[in-house]
Amino acid sequence: MRVPKIYLAGPDVFHPDARSLGERKKAMCARYGFDGLFPLDNELDLAGLPPARAGLRIYEANRSMMQIADLGIAHLTPFRGPSADAGTVFEVGYMTALGKPVYGYCNEPGDYLQRAQRRGCVASDVAGVRRDLDEMAIEEFALEDNLMILGGVLEHAEFVVHSAPEHARFTDLTGFEACLRRAAERFAHVLAQRDEAP
Amino acid sequence: MRVPKIYLAGPDVFHPDARSLGERKKAMCARYGFDGLFPLDNELDLAGLPPARAGLRIYEANRSMMQIADLGIAHLTPFRGPSADAGTVFEVGYMTALGKPVYGYCNEPGDYLQRAQRRGCVASDVAGVRRDLDEMAIEEFALEDNLMILGGVLEHAEFVVHSAPEHARFTDLTGFEACLRRAAERFAHVLAQRDEAP
Repeated sequence: MRVPKIYLAGPDVFHPDARSLGERKKAMCARYGFDGLFPLDNELDLAGLPPARAGLRIYEANRSMMQIADLGIAHLTPFRGPSADAGTVFEVGYMTALGKPVYGYCNEPGDYLQRAQRRGCVASDVAGVRRDLDEMAIEEFALEDNLMILGGVLEHAEFVVHSAPEHARFTDLTGFEACLRRAAERFAHVLAQRDEAP
Repeated sequence: MRVPKIYLAGPDVFHPDARSLGERKKAMCARYGFDGLFPLDNELDLAGLPPARAGLRIYEANRSMMQIADLGIAHLTPFRGPSADAGTVFEVGYMTALGKPVYGYCNEPGDYLQRAQRRGCVASDVAGVRRDLDEMAIEEFALEDNLMILGGVLEHAEFVVHSAPEHARFTDLTGFEACLRRAAERFAHVLAQRDEAP
């Protein structure tokens, strides 16, 4: 029987322990009956390539993983600003357009306005419209991140928020496991067929 | 004859002069033979909706615009951090997955490492791996932004960088017009059919 594949999107690849983080996620996927696809598993021969060519080869490999995946789980903790990692956000958009569910998890509580406030982005408030230093308005829709991200995730799946301790903001997998549980419920019929196979 | 439609993605919607910025972009699209679709053109009745519901309605309207568009032009100037606006990045991913070309333009020169350095994100450099305050590695592929964004744009279209004066970082349309010119070359056969129509 075919094992459903989960694309593991997130800034995890930038963490000093990226590979072991990926292994932990894949082991958890396996426990729930899924096959986890972690971007660093792509075995690419990038030796001798100019950096930009190497980067675009990684793009192509990740794109292929998203194309064969049945669903995604995206790590959407704020990254270098009030929003999630840009590469991960691209991937949420990509998989949403393919009609594949993308569960999202985030290790920092609060909505986008609160995230922006914590980072000192809110510079003015005229007539109830909060703006940053560039005078760009701050979104206030009581959603955790830009409305396109939440719209994409909620269109086919769910968004889970967990308040992780600061030292574990990029490694805490509580929210990740909650996504896995929900995905296992959703794919229960597929996973059951698998268990019944000889 | 059908006029090709361009989805106008970007943080322009957050600018104090968002509507006139949208009108300028649409007038330029018309000059090149295109129909520009600006998110604020969606006439949505959001009165009385809870904020999160209103946000998700805007998502749905933008998604519909992307679905009917033939191509996109995305404004990818760094926004509240070293990367482009998250909503725009989602849209680049979404349209790329649909196989639609998305031209990208950016009003700040430099690659991702330089953008991160300018914003004080680079906190350490051990064994040649630069990391931020969360110890997350900084991408170094000599690309302007996260490799997924560049990969998506370059897969079907082009990325244009223009060094705009600081006061015009979100309003300068030099790069936008360069994208329009390239799109007009690419869609020349469609635009020509249109001109020949009675």
